[in-house]
Amino acid sequence: MAEDERLVKKIAAKSEDFSRWYLEIIRRAELADYAPMKGMMVIRPDGYSIWENIQRLLDGRIKDSGHVNAYFPLFIPESFLRKEMEHLKGFAPEVAWVTHGGQEELEERLAVRPTSEAVIGSMYAKWIHSYRDLPVLINQWANIVRWEKVTRPFLRTTEFLWQEGHTAHETFDQAQDETIKILYLYKEFVESELAIPVVEGRKTPREKFAGAMETYAIEALMSDGKALQMGTSHNLGQHFSKVFDIRFEDREQKRQYVWQTSWGVSTRLIGALVMTHGDDSGLRFPPQVAPVQIVIVPISIGNWKENVLPVAVSVEKDLRRAGWRVRLDAREEFTPGWKFSEWEMRGVPLRIEIGPRDVKENRAVLVRRDVRKKDSVDLGELISRVKGTLREIQASLFDQALRFQRENTRTVSDYDEFKEVIESKRGFISCGWCGDESCEARIKEETMATVRVIPLKRDREDIGPCVCCRKPGRESALFARAY
Amino acid sequence: MAEDERLVKKIAAKSEDFSRWYLEIIRRAELADYAPMKGMMVIRPDGYSIWENIQRLLDGRIKDSGHVNAYFPLFIPESFLRKEMEHLKGFAPEVAWVTHGGQEELEERLAVRPTSEAVIGSMYAKWIHSYRDLPVLINQWANIVRWEKVTRPFLRTTEFLWQEGHTAHETFDQAQDETIKILYLYKEFVESELAIPVVEGRKTPREKFAGAMETYAIEALMSDGKALQMGTSHNLGQHFSKVFDIRFEDREQKRQYVWQTSWGVSTRLIGALVMTHGDDSGLRFPPQVAPVQIVIVPISIGNWKENVLPVAVSVEKDLRRAGWRVRLDAREEFTPGWKFSEWEMRGVPLRIEIGPRDVKENRAVLVRRDVRKKDSVDLGELISRVKGTLREIQASLFDQALRFQRENTRTVSDYDEFKEVIESKRGFISCGWCGDESCEARIKEETMATVRVIPLKRDREDIGPCVCCRKPGRESALFARAY
Repeated sequence: MAEDERLVKKIAAKSEDFSRWYLEIIRRAELADYAPMKGMMVIRPDGYSIWENIQRLLDGRIKDSGHVNAYFPLFIPESFLRKEMEHLKGFAPEVAWVTHGGQEELEERLAVRPTSEAVIGSMYAKWIHSYRDLPVLINQWANIVRWEKVTRPFLRTTEFLWQEGHTAHETFDQAQDETIKILYLYKEFVESELAIPVVEGRKTPREKFAGAMETYAIEALMSDGKALQMGTSHNLGQHFSKVFDIRFEDREQKRQYVWQTSWGVSTRLIGALVMTHGDDSGLRFPPQVAPVQIVIVPISIGNWKENVLPVAVSVEKDLRRAGWRVRLDAREEFTPGWKFSEWEMRGVPLRIEIGPRDVKENRAVLVRRDVRKKDSVDLGELISRVKGTLREIQASLFDQALRFQRENTRTVSDYDEFKEVIESKRGFISCGWCGDESCEARIKEETMATVRVIPLKRDREDIGPCVCCRKPGRESALFARAY
Repeated sequence: MAEDERLVKKIAAKSEDFSRWYLEIIRRAELADYAPMKGMMVIRPDGYSIWENIQRLLDGRIKDSGHVNAYFPLFIPESFLRKEMEHLKGFAPEVAWVTHGGQEELEERLAVRPTSEAVIGSMYAKWIHSYRDLPVLINQWANIVRWEKVTRPFLRTTEFLWQEGHTAHETFDQAQDETIKILYLYKEFVESELAIPVVEGRKTPREKFAGAMETYAIEALMSDGKALQMGTSHNLGQHFSKVFDIRFEDREQKRQYVWQTSWGVSTRLIGALVMTHGDDSGLRFPPQVAPVQIVIVPISIGNWKENVLPVAVSVEKDLRRAGWRVRLDAREEFTPGWKFSEWEMRGVPLRIEIGPRDVKENRAVLVRRDVRKKDSVDLGELISRVKGTLREIQASLFDQALRFQRENTRTVSDYDEFKEVIESKRGFISCGWCGDESCEARIKEETMATVRVIPLKRDREDIGPCVCCRKPGRESALFARAY
């Protein structure tokens, strides 16, 4: 059909030019658009709807684990960032500075929030006095600005949206428990709701957050074989509490510095959804976070507006009442075939087709986006069949992604093999590493691969010699080229 | 009891020093705190929880009326604001300017979003081509920066949170319908959920939004007799569409400029809750938006931890399962009396006291925050009694505020009476106005009162002569001193 061809032609094939496909599909599916300011984007309603679903599902988990939300200022005085030089050095190249308010030049420049450890630390110093005030378990949903040189929608933009948790505890152990608890909360959330399998682990000192004692992360493999950092959880130790003088009287009436953590995920997750699940026909969204879960397309032949449309409208009402996000596409200016490929491109997990014959037989056709399987269903059991099918789609997208991740995680034992794999196949490479930053730096320079994480659940016995220098391995590291 | 006295002493009495009371209660009840940057505040968890409730309840209404959410950039190039001089002039004194990104000075200054008409207009010009693309009904939840000279937490701060709707339509009438529909959506929301009665009406040209054809607002009366603008809805006409060239092909294939609206409410509503419902004992929150709806205080005498606490825990569980926001205050370091006044101060609508005798009789005592009425209730009917009582509290707070508003809305017929009322009683003053800006300006200068709105539902026949110049009245205006 002519319309379908026209549609397909507009977009690069994912399998041929992944990078162009990513940029084109995001705009074509109206998830985001370029803003008139370099490096900034507009998150359009369908893209933002995914973010709202992420917020709702993640916020529930954050609250159920005892955290509360708050809101801290967008502007942070330069002197606050300066208090912690390691932190400042980490962020200075990326800070947007406000220098004027109205007509006046400010006495002190204000950083537009690149992250909130400094301003939140200064408030915690006012609020925390005794061990009875601990733990403080606060999360914030906010916008963040980092002056990035190379940008890509959702993955790296001058402004992005995120949540940042900031907690304070009596002991190191409690802070460490929180750090790991959140890491696994993120893993469970991303795997169940976004259907993206991740590897959890510790970052190397070179890759950790500026000011953190230890950074943990979850990493996923995109379908071009590059890794994407999906979320981070930092044990900050007493680093910021010493800088911002956050002290409490402990159970023995001694003044102690609190132990802190911070952790976050961002709108980058939307980019991960696109890159993990998309195919040559466009997007494929997991039902849990899809902006539209079900699209109903009435087959517009004959007097469809009299005999088909009313059934479609009533099906829409039923599905909506059952709690799903449904769209009925009753537009007259497009053919059913055009609509099929349009909604496939937009990643709607389930399509329901209703034609004159279906109406006569009191049936409808369910078409899965993920495997394109068609099923004729009696309208009487539509709700339960839709429920089951959406659950199957969610599980099947995860399984596909997990299979891809496993097939593209390779254990190598020498550097030649490492280079060969990274060049020809990409993916995750698991190997021994001496723990020395010079080897890490050399590998990055020669192969563009970095240590994504030291996975948490690896048997210590298995560590081979360092893939680079052949000295005894200290860590079993997971390398990849990354976004 | 000594603790209660200590607590009460800490805060100014509302009836004696309203302004000091407002600032003190907000910090004492931990709704907000001053940030280390002038004019900025931190919204603490209890304050933010109110905002989350407002968001949830208002967002539902916004979506049910056909709008979708999106997210537009925080930074707006100066040239975009300059495109519309009236708009720029309106906001220029209040704009925070970003001049540097990282180490580099920017070629063009970026405004930190004082409102988003300009950036959204530039995107609509890209997205809207045909009447089939209309209406565009987009809302955004975002942070806003305005460089204010005099600030007050929630009411006027350098940064605040809001929602801003931006719609585009085929005709003037459709834009006008949307403007009024949103005005009444706001009114219904504020009255039902915040229990604050408002007057809806049109702003004078002097008070309207920079760039709007017509601004409508809802105004409430705070308990010190000053008015507070609670929300605005603007009919923008074709003003911005001409500036940003937002055109569409209409049903007759002619190119037309779209008709636009914009509308918003902000975290200022939290200040309105404090000022409308508070009393000398502290805050009184309407149950619909209260951070905590019910506090359970076990009476800690004898071996209460064995016989009372388990009942309190089970009551908490039941109430939480029923969907309420509940806190059980089982702290040992405070007496029940201290806790009573603490939670009264924090505005929790309903307190449940459970003592040893209550446990024996399978009962609990419900205490309403609004009228301090006590009721002994059988635990078997607790859920239904709590439900009914919370509903009564919500209604009674609205009724009290409405009575106050009515008692403090006075019709005056001459300027002496106007001055006398505004000086001695404040409140709303209803009177005739010639419609001339010079009278409006003179009244403001001499009395500090401004036209809050020209109420929508007034019988045109009733207009008296202008209160100021005695010429025939053109409008029946509602004046007040305002925040």
